[in-house]
Amino acid sequence: MRDFSMHHDWLSLNTATIRKQWSLDRIIDECARRSVKAISPWRDQVAKVGLRNIASQLKSHDIGLSGYCRGGFFSAATREQREASLEDNRRTVDEACELGAPCVVLVVGGLPGALDGKPVYCDMGRARTEVFDGIASMLDYARGCGMPLAIEPLHPMQAAERACINTLEHALDICDALDPEESGLLGVALDVYHVWWDPKLEQQIKRAGARRLLAYHVCDWLTPTRDLLNDRGMMGDGVVELKKIRGWMEGAGFQGYCEIEIFSDRWWREAADAVLDTCISRYRTVV
Amino acid sequence: MRDFSMHHDWLSLNTATIRKQWSLDRIIDECARRSVKAISPWRDQVAKVGLRNIASQLKSHDIGLSGYCRGGFFSAATREQREASLEDNRRTVDEACELGAPCVVLVVGGLPGALDGKPVYCDMGRARTEVFDGIASMLDYARGCGMPLAIEPLHPMQAAERACINTLEHALDICDALDPEESGLLGVALDVYHVWWDPKLEQQIKRAGARRLLAYHVCDWLTPTRDLLNDRGMMGDGVVELKKIRGWMEGAGFQGYCEIEIFSDRWWREAADAVLDTCISRYRTVV
Repeated sequence: MRDFSMHHDWLSLNTATIRKQWSLDRIIDECARRSVKAISPWRDQVAKVGLRNIASQLKSHDIGLSGYCRGGFFSAATREQREASLEDNRRTVDEACELGAPCVVLVVGGLPGALDGKPVYCDMGRARTEVFDGIASMLDYARGCGMPLAIEPLHPMQAAERACINTLEHALDICDALDPEESGLLGVALDVYHVWWDPKLEQQIKRAGARRLLAYHVCDWLTPTRDLLNDRGMMGDGVVELKKIRGWMEGAGFQGYCEIEIFSDRWWREAADAVLDTCISRYRTVV
Repeated sequence: MRDFSMHHDWLSLNTATIRKQWSLDRIIDECARRSVKAISPWRDQVAKVGLRNIASQLKSHDIGLSGYCRGGFFSAATREQREASLEDNRRTVDEACELGAPCVVLVVGGLPGALDGKPVYCDMGRARTEVFDGIASMLDYARGCGMPLAIEPLHPMQAAERACINTLEHALDICDALDPEESGLLGVALDVYHVWWDPKLEQQIKRAGARRLLAYHVCDWLTPTRDLLNDRGMMGDGVVELKKIRGWMEGAGFQGYCEIEIFSDRWWREAADAVLDTCISRYRTVV
């Protein structure tokens, strides 16, 4: 297993972690000052500063990406909405190419309308079929650009609102169906927050192997967890066996960035400098 | 599939649903008035009125049980605590026998101490081993009494605090390991709230079959869900495909009670009469 204690060359910052404190250009400057070598930005943060500006700022600082957030939300109430989602996903792939991202992370969508508290239908089987078809269609486009897609299984508590793919096993079944040749263009983004509880996690990480393991996200699961979305913990403050899971990842051949992704009202209230410094020190000690 | 629209002969009430409004003896009287034929009571509710009193009240009203809540919490920090838990579980089996319960429901436990916000260890593998050993030991005792044990997989969001068995597949793997002969003395309690999201649900219900399907609990999953424990929905207010899942259960041979189990700050604030009447009418229309 790689030794993380002496430097943070394999740390990436998911920029949602301090999105409420700083704009993306400020985040990139501050990451550069701290020798953080990669980030994973969100589309809306990029759009606010401008795609070209961000691309050139990253280049001048020699900062890479560990992923681009995010594509997905394929399920929809009507054919028109599904088409609009696919069009938007194609734009996401184009942006990811311009930024030099290694992959687009997919939050695939759940029951349409559920995110606004008004599910249009409650048929999980239908949602999953629409998601499958959506990934297939996006993959056709992404293949043409050479841009890998990383399906992110979300925690089952977010199945209705955000993603009806909730286990690594399910995500890999879809990868095998759509990309049996393991081209490297379809795989998974593994976020410990979503999957730490899964009794089949070790087995499925092995099954995935290096060709499918496109991204690795860390934070922690707090006890108690007070909110289903914005109560993620800083690494070391919760119960996730971070070193054990990274051991499984590396045992399966993963050698990429550990991306720190914390959505947390508590950490969004802190000074961003302190958050960044805490991320780096926890990365070196507990990740 | 059984027709529930004309009567509620297969409705059972989990008595936690109105625990904040009425004591258990009042609940039993009110269920009898409404021709509810079964309940599933909690140990503390029984203890408050007295085991013998409840047993004779049930008998005089000819009200049965669909389960007894609950055994479990096998994982623990020390050998002494594990022994104490087993002793307590044996008493639970004895009480279930006196009440004529068809099974004891097991909430198996997660990381010891996590429920109080102070996990003693974070090793899910260890917790699962202790849980496995605990079920094995309890099963020895339950066999002697002829009392079936029903493992209840809990939602993954409760893995740390309450139960490290979080999928039906995992529960059935344990059943197969400890009771390969399918004696009828070890099975599962399936609560839609915990498992509705699972892409393998239909497949695993089929695998379970009538010998393993010992209890079936219904409520609903709300969007948004505002609390990880006490924000369950009344059937019909959320996104769970209740008729589809009951179809799978009955297709696998289950013909028992549909137990309504709602932990909800919203419904605990309502008049218990209204809650009971709503349960009955929703049972007839959407379950």
